[in-house]
Parts: sequence; structure tokens; C-alpha cells
Amino acid sequence: MKKVLFSLVAFSFLLTLAADIKLPAPQKTGGKSLMESLNARKTIRKYQAKELSMQEISNLLWAACGVNRPDGKRTSPTAVNAQEITLFVLLKKGSYRYDAAKNLLVEINKKDLRKLAAPRFEAPLTLIIASDTAKQSRMKDMAKKIHYSDVDSGYVSQNIYLYCASASLGTVAIGGVADNGDVIRKELGLAKSFYPVLGHAVGIPR
Amino acid sequence: MKKVLFSLVAFSFLLTLAADIKLPAPQKTGGKSLMESLNARKTIRKYQAKELSMQEISNLLWAACGVNRPDGKRTSPTAVNAQEITLFVLLKKGSYRYDAAKNLLVEINKKDLRKLAAPRFEAPLTLIIASDTAKQSRMKDMAKKIHYSDVDSGYVSQNIYLYCASASLGTVAIGGVADNGDVIRKELGLAKSFYPVLGHAVGIPR
Repeated sequence: MKKVLFSLVAFSFLLTLAADIKLPAPQKTGGKSLMESLNARKTIRKYQAKELSMQEISNLLWAACGVNRPDGKRTSPTAVNAQEITLFVLLKKGSYRYDAAKNLLVEINKKDLRKLAAPRFEAPLTLIIASDTAKQSRMKDMAKKIHYSDVDSGYVSQNIYLYCASASLGTVAIGGVADNGDVIRKELGLAKSFYPVLGHAVGIPR
Repeated sequence: MKKVLFSLVAFSFLLTLAADIKLPAPQKTGGKSLMESLNARKTIRKYQAKELSMQEISNLLWAACGVNRPDGKRTSPTAVNAQEITLFVLLKKGSYRYDAAKNLLVEINKKDLRKLAAPRFEAPLTLIIASDTAKQSRMKDMAKKIHYSDVDSGYVSQNIYLYCASASLGTVAIGGVADNGDVIRKELGLAKSFYPVLGHAVGIPR
């Protein structure tokens, strides 16, 4: 009995490992200078079907809101360091949550939900920038939480624009995803406290 | 009479020239890479009294929301390209509006209003990121205008953080400046449609 139980636990563990994606370490050197990236920053709306490499995805997510200090602080700030922003990564093969501390894509499901973030665009990868308002515990009213979630999403979105400019990728930020909040929360299994602020489509420019 | 009039016009013109500050062209090459800047991004709250050079100010403002394309588009995006964000530059010697197209600091007054942007910080330069909601003409309700003003201010603020990281300067973003909106609009001579979103303090780290 104990052996069977052990095998089951081990098997579940392996399944979990298989479903999540351990990202390669982000490349923190090389690429364009900041000023050259700013000079190249623009919106690009049409992409090749070719998928991004896991290295590119790792770099992109780290640039967006990765951990850049031993105390867990990030490349993008959040008001009163609430760290309420989470990135959801939508690929053809499934939907994932970016775990910045572990540099891991945690699988949510095996559905192709890319259109949730970018209904009007065809892209190999889309992102949802969402705020978990429950983490903004030092803010009392919801209006303030929404206000800072919006500002903090802008920080992350600019990092995505700049990484894409630096790596010769294309991207567009998409507003109004909150209008589809109920569907997004249901499909990604998120609590009511999650507020999706922006979508992004990312790909190699066509 | 004509001569007197001409002299007066010429004199006023020279006065205007003297009051506004033509910035040197921003340096769009050199400095840290984007990824190194992201790796170095952090909040720094204490600064030396030393003033920034006009070259540093030009670089900073261009990075924040300067023109990076011939059609007038910017280093930071705005929803439906409303370009509603304006930067106000507060120095010891006076208050200025950043005219991105002309790369000019347009003098508003000769007051030291640095504390308006950053009440709790001592810095040689402070900034107010403000939205002119009148420019968001494609958005109907004020809630939507405020929402996108907040997101778009985050874009500009992240650029300020990254330029400072790249140039070994320190900065902190300051929320809640809108609570002091009436005073800010009065002191800077702004219409009711201006909504100040964020402050920034900038200086050489102490």
C-alpha cells in the first residue's frame, strides 16, 4: 500500500514537472542600449506565425517584471511595493502564470486562449497583465487599488515594449481587457480579486 | 513710432528667448544596455544638492516621452495615440513645460515649486507627469480618460526609472499628486482639464 502511494505521489510530481516550464536564465547583458531601444520603440501589429524561443520568452518576462535584486524586488516598481502585478502567458499549447521568483511558467491549462488578451490580433504569444488587488492591502478603497494597478501595469507594459524594441520583436498593448474580466478570471481560474488591466500581443514582425 | 514698436517686439522676443531654455540634442547612443538598465532599476530617495546638467535633463526628458519618429510619435505610447501626457520640470530657478517637438523647456514662472511634485524629498529636479484629458477626445467618459491617463503615466515613469538607472542617477515616483491638483493647476497655470498623475524626484544619489 505504501509503495503504491509513493508511486502515485512520485507520478503526480513528475506530471507537475512536465506541465510547468522551467525557463532558461534570462540574458541580462548584450542587446541594444537603453537609448537605442527607446529610439526604436513603437507599436507593431502584424507578426509571423513562428513561435518565440524559450530564451526569448524568458528574457521578455524578466524584462517585464522579473526579479532584479536579492530581496525579490522587480524590474518594474509597484506602489508601496505591493507586487500586485502578475503576468499570464498565453501560448498555442497552453496558458501559464509567470512565477518570477522561480523563473517558471506554471501551467494553468492546455487551452489556446491567446485571443483573450488580444482579440483582434494573430500572434504566437499573448500576455495579460493583471493585478491581484488582494495584495494591495495597504490601500483601503477599491478606487485607489485600481488607480495604482493601472499605473503599475503601465510600467510593465513599457518594459515589454522596450524589450521587443531591443530584440527586434513586435508588440502592441491592448486596453479594455477588463471589460472581459469575468471570462478571463473563469478561463484562468483566478479569484475575484484579480483585475486584468492590459493585454499584449508579441511576435516576430511580419 | 515704428522703430520703437520694432524695438519693443524685438526686446520681448529676446526676453522670451532668455526665459525659455533650448535643450541640447538628446544623446541617443551610448550608456548602459536595456537589460543592464532593467537590472539596475530601483528606487533611490536621497540625492546630492548638485544640479543636473542640461545634457542630462535633455536625455532624461527625451527618454521619458520624447519624439522618436518623424511623425511626432513618442518613446512612450498613449492610448489611441492621444498624446495627452505632458511633463512639467521643476527646478530651483523656475518651472517649465517640456515641449518635446521643439526640445525646449518653456518657462512657466520663476518660482521654486519642486516640492509640488515631491513634498517629502529634497532633489535638484522634480517632475510632474500630467494628463491633459481634453486631448483624449476619442474617449467619452471621464473614468476611461483617467484610466488611460494612469496607464500612460506608468509608461513615462518607467522610462524615467530606466534612464536614471542607465545614467547612474537616482529617482523615486510619487503617487497621490492628484490630491493636490487644484494647487498644482493654479501654480502652473493649467486648465481644469489637466490631471496630475505622478511626481518624480531626480538627482545624483547621495
